[in-house]
Amino acid sequence: MSGIFVSFEGVDGVGKSTQVERLKEYAEERGREVVVTREPGGTTLGVALRQLLLHDGGDIAPRAEALLFAADRAQHVAEVIRPALARGALVISDRYIDSSLAYQAGGRELTQDEVRNLSLWATNDLLPDRTYLLDMDPAASHNRLEHSEDRMESAGQEFQKRTRQAFLDLASHEPSRLMVVDAAKPIEKVWNQIRGDADGLLAS
Amino acid sequence: MSGIFVSFEGVDGVGKSTQVERLKEYAEERGREVVVTREPGGTTLGVALRQLLLHDGGDIAPRAEALLFAADRAQHVAEVIRPALARGALVISDRYIDSSLAYQAGGRELTQDEVRNLSLWATNDLLPDRTYLLDMDPAASHNRLEHSEDRMESAGQEFQKRTRQAFLDLASHEPSRLMVVDAAKPIEKVWNQIRGDADGLLAS
Repeated sequence: MSGIFVSFEGVDGVGKSTQVERLKEYAEERGREVVVTREPGGTTLGVALRQLLLHDGGDIAPRAEALLFAADRAQHVAEVIRPALARGALVISDRYIDSSLAYQAGGRELTQDEVRNLSLWATNDLLPDRTYLLDMDPAASHNRLEHSEDRMESAGQEFQKRTRQAFLDLASHEPSRLMVVDAAKPIEKVWNQIRGDADGLLAS
Repeated sequence: MSGIFVSFEGVDGVGKSTQVERLKEYAEERGREVVVTREPGGTTLGVALRQLLLHDGGDIAPRAEALLFAADRAQHVAEVIRPALARGALVISDRYIDSSLAYQAGGRELTQDEVRNLSLWATNDLLPDRTYLLDMDPAASHNRLEHSEDRMESAGQEFQKRTRQAFLDLASHEPSRLMVVDAAKPIEKVWNQIRGDADGLLAS
């Protein structure tokens, strides 16, 4: 049994956590070890970096920010994801490379190629087997947010709109990896679509 | 008057701080604004990263470590070095790119090309006008150390020997930028050699 690597992407408030939890329970019921993790913050180092990136770091230069996200990802892959995949687990990551591409490159000063190269170097070219992009209008997702005071969110709704579009563009360029899921639908319908796809992955 | 960027390199305990201070005083006496800085840790973000890298980060994966050093450098260049150079200052950095090349690439798992590319991307290709490599036998420099408990130092003398050699190799490949200074000589003689070279830089 070989490991499976799945990531969930989308702007804040689209319901990623709920679907991550559904997939975890579903796979565990089928006897699969499941490792749920997140970026930034999937490791001890990552938690410290997450704190720096979202709250304590002050005015972080764009390249420094991109490098910190890449460092978090490098540690995350080396410490958590690769060992779990080697054990045959399903690894579910709440955000991965596409968040870097959409947030850092889509919304700020760096090109997507630069950020992609950085991330691929950081991870030794590890990409998910499948990425579920939970997509909905930012005006709708904003209402779902429980906490709204971190740096990313305070950048406002125009930023969220650009980021949503960046995610959709990524999906259109890599349709075999990224599956767009309409997250405005009821939770059960969203889950049914994900489960239908995940069945294939889990059977492989 | 255009800015001048100088870095000091060498293994711990070779007397970099003393020579940095000498050069600072010397240039200030000649009416030059001087900004003394260091890596890791030249910015608020850098101080937090330095703490993570040297003490709190636990077992950091090699690529994550390289990315954190690069993030520190990116912030350092954007926040401190480039603005000071734009004002016409002499910027003296205690460690810069060559430390990454010698410590991360020379002593650990990554190639020098990988680490160099990372650093050049982080800094938008900023290299020092001159780098003084303070060189001495690690057995001698070890005795000069005031504090010896951080992570780099605990890696032991074999590591220091390899790092010294890595610095010397860097100098042999870029002799127009890196000047090797025999740091086993008395402080005054070391300073005289550096001053002789710095006079040319300061006059330019």
